[in-house]
Amino acid sequence: MAILDKFSGLAARYEQLKASGGDPFSIQFDDIISSVEGVVKGKRTLLFGTNNYLGLTFDPISMERSIDAIRKHGTGTTGSRIANGSYREHEKLERELADFYGHEHCMVFSTGYQANLAMISTLVGKDDHLIIDADSHASIYDASRLGHAPVVRFRHNNPEDLAKRLARLKDQPGEKLIVVEGIYSMLGDTAPLKEFVDVKREFGAYLMVDEAHSMGVLGQRGRGLAEREGVEEDVDFVVGTFSKSLASVGGFCVSSVEGFDILRLAARPYMFTASLPPAIIASTLSALETLRNEPQRRAKLRANSRRFYNGLKDAGFTVGPEANPIVAVILNDPAVATMFWKRLVDEGMYLNLALPPATPNSSAFLRSSVSAAHTEEHIDFAIALMTRVGREFGILPEAPEYSNVTPFPRVSAERLSARAATAPARRRAADVGAGMA
Amino acid sequence: MAILDKFSGLAARYEQLKASGGDPFSIQFDDIISSVEGVVKGKRTLLFGTNNYLGLTFDPISMERSIDAIRKHGTGTTGSRIANGSYREHEKLERELADFYGHEHCMVFSTGYQANLAMISTLVGKDDHLIIDADSHASIYDASRLGHAPVVRFRHNNPEDLAKRLARLKDQPGEKLIVVEGIYSMLGDTAPLKEFVDVKREFGAYLMVDEAHSMGVLGQRGRGLAEREGVEEDVDFVVGTFSKSLASVGGFCVSSVEGFDILRLAARPYMFTASLPPAIIASTLSALETLRNEPQRRAKLRANSRRFYNGLKDAGFTVGPEANPIVAVILNDPAVATMFWKRLVDEGMYLNLALPPATPNSSAFLRSSVSAAHTEEHIDFAIALMTRVGREFGILPEAPEYSNVTPFPRVSAERLSARAATAPARRRAADVGAGMA
Repeated sequence: MAILDKFSGLAARYEQLKASGGDPFSIQFDDIISSVEGVVKGKRTLLFGTNNYLGLTFDPISMERSIDAIRKHGTGTTGSRIANGSYREHEKLERELADFYGHEHCMVFSTGYQANLAMISTLVGKDDHLIIDADSHASIYDASRLGHAPVVRFRHNNPEDLAKRLARLKDQPGEKLIVVEGIYSMLGDTAPLKEFVDVKREFGAYLMVDEAHSMGVLGQRGRGLAEREGVEEDVDFVVGTFSKSLASVGGFCVSSVEGFDILRLAARPYMFTASLPPAIIASTLSALETLRNEPQRRAKLRANSRRFYNGLKDAGFTVGPEANPIVAVILNDPAVATMFWKRLVDEGMYLNLALPPATPNSSAFLRSSVSAAHTEEHIDFAIALMTRVGREFGILPEAPEYSNVTPFPRVSAERLSARAATAPARRRAADVGAGMA
Repeated sequence: MAILDKFSGLAARYEQLKASGGDPFSIQFDDIISSVEGVVKGKRTLLFGTNNYLGLTFDPISMERSIDAIRKHGTGTTGSRIANGSYREHEKLERELADFYGHEHCMVFSTGYQANLAMISTLVGKDDHLIIDADSHASIYDASRLGHAPVVRFRHNNPEDLAKRLARLKDQPGEKLIVVEGIYSMLGDTAPLKEFVDVKREFGAYLMVDEAHSMGVLGQRGRGLAEREGVEEDVDFVVGTFSKSLASVGGFCVSSVEGFDILRLAARPYMFTASLPPAIIASTLSALETLRNEPQRRAKLRANSRRFYNGLKDAGFTVGPEANPIVAVILNDPAVATMFWKRLVDEGMYLNLALPPATPNSSAFLRSSVSAAHTEEHIDFAIALMTRVGREFGILPEAPEYSNVTPFPRVSAERLSARAATAPARRRAADVGAGMA
């Protein structure tokens, strides 16, 4: 019918993709066995494509607390916080998150997407300025559309470019809000937060850091990149999600900005949505406790990340710039990447495929997420499998002595990270899977 | 700090409201005892302020299925459907919903808010036209901002005005999408869907009906208003939520438009958000089964709605235009309404307070949601309590012979329903609690 005709090009590309080697955007798990193992088409499959950083999805304590919450308070709240009220647990989770971050205030949202939507679209209005990294997550781009503030993008992870753009706004009235992410979800690179803080201070802007992929991952206490970089005092708003390290669904923002709670009556994606069910709140609270009390999980996650990243790099793959839990293998040919991805799934390893136009320079990524629940054997299996397929596909040389070879100098991770912010906003709202959109 | 200064007026009004009689937007339940009973400040309280239409939040089967799902598949999926794949249950829920509505396709979203955001912002693009009811829910207004289509509003529930506006667009290229709701969340009035369908046909537009408040409530099988009105064939897209009749959280869209599934790779609020956890999917599936198999719940809900609506009307209150589960008592003075609300909570009845500027004509509403789980005694207690307080506050006459009295002719429900769409869009995005925003 006519209303979907505008997607006929996309549909045709998707059909072509499916014909060429499988459907990376519609994987179905027959079963999920553990935090890091599922069943795909009857085959036991290692999960390297989830954001289960601390491996807590099957945490027995979280599961039991979630079960208790259902028995005690039922399956849902059937309404928004402002209309239907809050259960004690909603407020407890907000207090615990504020305490964890050492902040005064916290608001919990029904999804991480809505956390960004709510905070960013509300904090700055038409008389203010929103300044975002060009490689921001889709939720940040969507928030910038939902809100009324003029939007300025700066080059990905580029403090000089940020400073240049703020300098242009220097004499303009209104507040300036800079939004960056702790770890970027495509290449796993971190923001140069210290430098961003310098720029923020110089221009008197506010700074929001989305620690979605870095909470529970970076920092002594697992608060994220700002903690690791020692700049938490200069971060005005921390946004995060429950659907990664905390293994449930939802999002939050913590802050010590005075009067923060008025946002509960102003942020529409908070006000006009049902609150999280008791089961979700309970497992999130439990996972937060585990995150705080078991730093060994973070240590294991870091060790696993390094092992995987270095293993792939040593094998000769072009990887992202840093050994974080998101490990991207950059391939140049989308068709090869699709076949590569399909082959890995067939052999029992699931990860994500990212395709142009979401990716820069028409490249394609194989994007993995490492978990603390992966064993060394899991990691080594994945490295060995990817190396074998890489050789078969002619991406890696046949010889075993390849550790100093960079087989695809055409697109280096460094160039990708430093690239200019010139493509249309909708296309740069990159995340896994955006390749087809 | 300066960034929140823009909300200082709102904050001052909120402080004033709290000083004048309690805080209607921050109710905290010490405990939730059943689908219709909670504890507020140590007092057992009847819940008339939730959207628990079928009373399924404590349904034992839904609870057990939810618990089983946690034991089997953990606390969360830690990712989006397109990146991290689908569990069997996600697809099963989509099939069951499509089957329930007799449609070919279904997409499930992580919140009802995101269902509207995703569908409306994606279905129509910059070359199309979006035509919405002026009293649309906030999520429809937000979707209209997120999308790129030019937006036209027509007068609430006014088919003539819709026709007039479509006539103006007649020679413009692009598709036209009309969005209406089954039951409107403030006054509980239904859309004149047959007339809207006639207009839709005349102008060759597409029609989306948001059955959030009417699913499980209206129609022989509980599909909603379109079923009751016998016009389902003419509804191209049905949107709904899991956080009302189905007692969990999430949203969906069903349709038989060919090629529907391509929206999975185009609708950003679907693509860039974590999928619903196993516990949520399981209880939603179970509640859908109950909705289908137990029509007596709908019958009870309708009987309860009529009993409550007629009881309040007979007592002399100005109520909404129809006896639906949402029952609005229209009061003219916001200060009186706030004290009235506070008094009801103190006496053990919780409902919602809606205040200007979200409400029309500077009026204020006490907004109740009736549940199938309410007993006749609950309903009669609520009527008696509201009548007693209404008399004490001078809203109702002291004499018992009041059934023909309309105490506040200044603002009638009919006028409210038929009012013109002239106020700013952001303010007309009315829902419970929007009063302060």
